Amino acid sequence: MAFDPATLRFDDRGLLPVIAQEKGTGEVLMLAWMNAEAVARTLETGRVTYWSRSRASFWVKGETSGHVQELVDLRIDCDRDCLLAVVRQVGPACHTNRKSCFFTAVRDGGEVELMAPMG
Amino acid sequence: MAFDPATLRFDDRGLLPVIAQEKGTGEVLMLAWMNAEAVARTLETGRVTYWSRSRASFWVKGETSGHVQELVDLRIDCDRDCLLAVVRQVGPACHTNRKSCFFTAVRDGGEVELMAPMG
Repeated sequence: MAFDPATLRFDDRGLLPVIAQEKGTGEVLMLAWMNAEAVARTLETGRVTYWSRSRASFWVKGETSGHVQELVDLRIDCDRDCLLAVVRQVGPACHTNRKSCFFTAVRDGGEVELMAPMG
Repeated sequence: MAFDPATLRFDDRGLLPVIAQEKGTGEVLMLAWMNAEAVARTLETGRVTYWSRSRASFWVKGETSGHVQELVDLRIDCDRDCLLAVVRQVGPACHTNRKSCFFTAVRDGGEVELMAPMG
């Protein structure tokens, strides 16, 4: 069956959430958003390309920082309203220079920082 | 620092996306949504509790199916608008009886099913 991004279920802004997971380690790196055109560009170029809600523009991950995400595999969930991008991540995924955006944990009723910025 | 779910950034529906990842394997199981009260209930009970958008009600994962998610660790992303729940999953996470909701991959321009329903 040929894949058409238009068959995905986008929200009322035309977006769906995309989870980026690192190939090999399985670490969940970040969550961002794509519209249908970002999905198509990601598949065409092999470079993970999101839609930046704050800048209202396409966001080729790492285009300015060099911290690109090379697409390894793109997966669709059962409801077709969420994607999982398995990637090779160059450098940190997070804008705080940490490997993953999920560096804070809730433990014993408080917040704990799990990882430091990369050197 | 004490954790208060009200300090998270919810969307205009009062929700944020939550990624469930299996402890140990690192497999990404599903994505669903929580409001502030669902976050609080998840932390209080140790049972992952979402907000069902379709039913407009709290959804204690596995309450009817038995396929519960025991919370191991709850992580907050850098923007505080997304959570990562590390869980112990009993049985399949997906309503199709598959381990993960992300059982379809886009490969060579088509869709490929990666896993069968659990027996």
